[in-house]
Amino acid sequence: MTPQIKALMFDVFGTVVDWRTSVSADLAAFFAPRGVTRDWTRMAVDWRGMYQPAMEAVRRGTRTYVILDDLHRENLDALLAAYDIAGLNAAELDYINRAWHRLHPWPDCVEGLTQLRARFILATASNGNTALMVNLARFGGLPWDAILGAAHTRSYKPMPQTYLGSAEALGLSPSDCMMVAAHNDDLAAARALGFATAFVCRPTEHGPDQTTDLQEESDWDFVCDSMTDLAKALL
Amino acid sequence: MTPQIKALMFDVFGTVVDWRTSVSADLAAFFAPRGVTRDWTRMAVDWRGMYQPAMEAVRRGTRTYVILDDLHRENLDALLAAYDIAGLNAAELDYINRAWHRLHPWPDCVEGLTQLRARFILATASNGNTALMVNLARFGGLPWDAILGAAHTRSYKPMPQTYLGSAEALGLSPSDCMMVAAHNDDLAAARALGFATAFVCRPTEHGPDQTTDLQEESDWDFVCDSMTDLAKALL
Repeated sequence: MTPQIKALMFDVFGTVVDWRTSVSADLAAFFAPRGVTRDWTRMAVDWRGMYQPAMEAVRRGTRTYVILDDLHRENLDALLAAYDIAGLNAAELDYINRAWHRLHPWPDCVEGLTQLRARFILATASNGNTALMVNLARFGGLPWDAILGAAHTRSYKPMPQTYLGSAEALGLSPSDCMMVAAHNDDLAAARALGFATAFVCRPTEHGPDQTTDLQEESDWDFVCDSMTDLAKALL
Repeated sequence: MTPQIKALMFDVFGTVVDWRTSVSADLAAFFAPRGVTRDWTRMAVDWRGMYQPAMEAVRRGTRTYVILDDLHRENLDALLAAYDIAGLNAAELDYINRAWHRLHPWPDCVEGLTQLRARFILATASNGNTALMVNLARFGGLPWDAILGAAHTRSYKPMPQTYLGSAEALGLSPSDCMMVAAHNDDLAAARALGFATAFVCRPTEHGPDQTTDLQEESDWDFVCDSMTDLAKALL
């Protein structure tokens, strides 16, 4: 199967970047000088917890596609209310919302992706919008060939269009592409459409007490612990 | 104006890559071993000449958006007939069509773009489709942050949506963006929408007898002879 693969399509949140420690550190850095104290890690996890429900209306077709930045911003209002934080102006709220544009890659990613890019086209197939993905790439030094996924296809994973439209943009069929993700459900959706699959285990994405995606739940084509491991397996 | 600019959006054919000598050399390399002799430079220019008319039906709305690879492929049939070349199989025709994925950058581009990328987001705003742009970037080492333009917006320049949808994908307003092109009409369309403009003169894009775009035809924000000159002016 490997010789046919021409492009690797990457989930990003959790697979390539560590959103939990990045967002919590970003919140702490913003609020500490303002004398506000909260459990920033729990707040980051709660914010992320609003992510899937927010996309559901788009997936069900009861809401036209809106970019993830806007969903994050809507959820931020509810989050701040729940944490009893008020009085921020529009520029401050926008700055906080863009914490999702300042996520650090896992330590193995820049090296592993750079190695993989020598042989494969590397594209994002994330639910993040284009600006968010571009800013993350510039922030963390991620060497993508193309930003695809949600914004390019105006859909949210696991809708088939997100995967199929991303492959089509590259002029490739699903069997030419491998989905790389730390989430079994993402890989299951991609495999059902004909993509090859690689599971990169990220056992602390949700913190030390994580209970999901601690291991592969199917016979994915590749299972590894880092992007450098994936590069070793594929190159 | 310059301090506000966050992203540079690039025309690609003629501005960044030298399609004329690249396509003619590609045709020569394919046909010479097969004993076929033609004026390959004229053939490249004729193929390119079919480009604007082919997009017109999409611009007028009488044809739904189809990618440039497909328009090139349709035009190739007519081109080969006009040059009395027949008997090629599907794989050979596909290979020839992908000459447009193997275009060499002008000599100043990799250096100039790499310098510009340190400060600005660099995105394509070309009529080429995503796969074509990705393959060109990998072929020539072009350091784009994002592939935008026609395929992302399902439109062809100078339709406003091609420019506006590309800026919107980056989360930017037109006044945050500068269009960079070797073609005065491309810059005029972008300026009318609020983009800043930079003219990069490419006086041999169409060959030694070129009569168009030999100089700026308006007071563009920047006028220069190469991407390295543009980098000097902007950095």
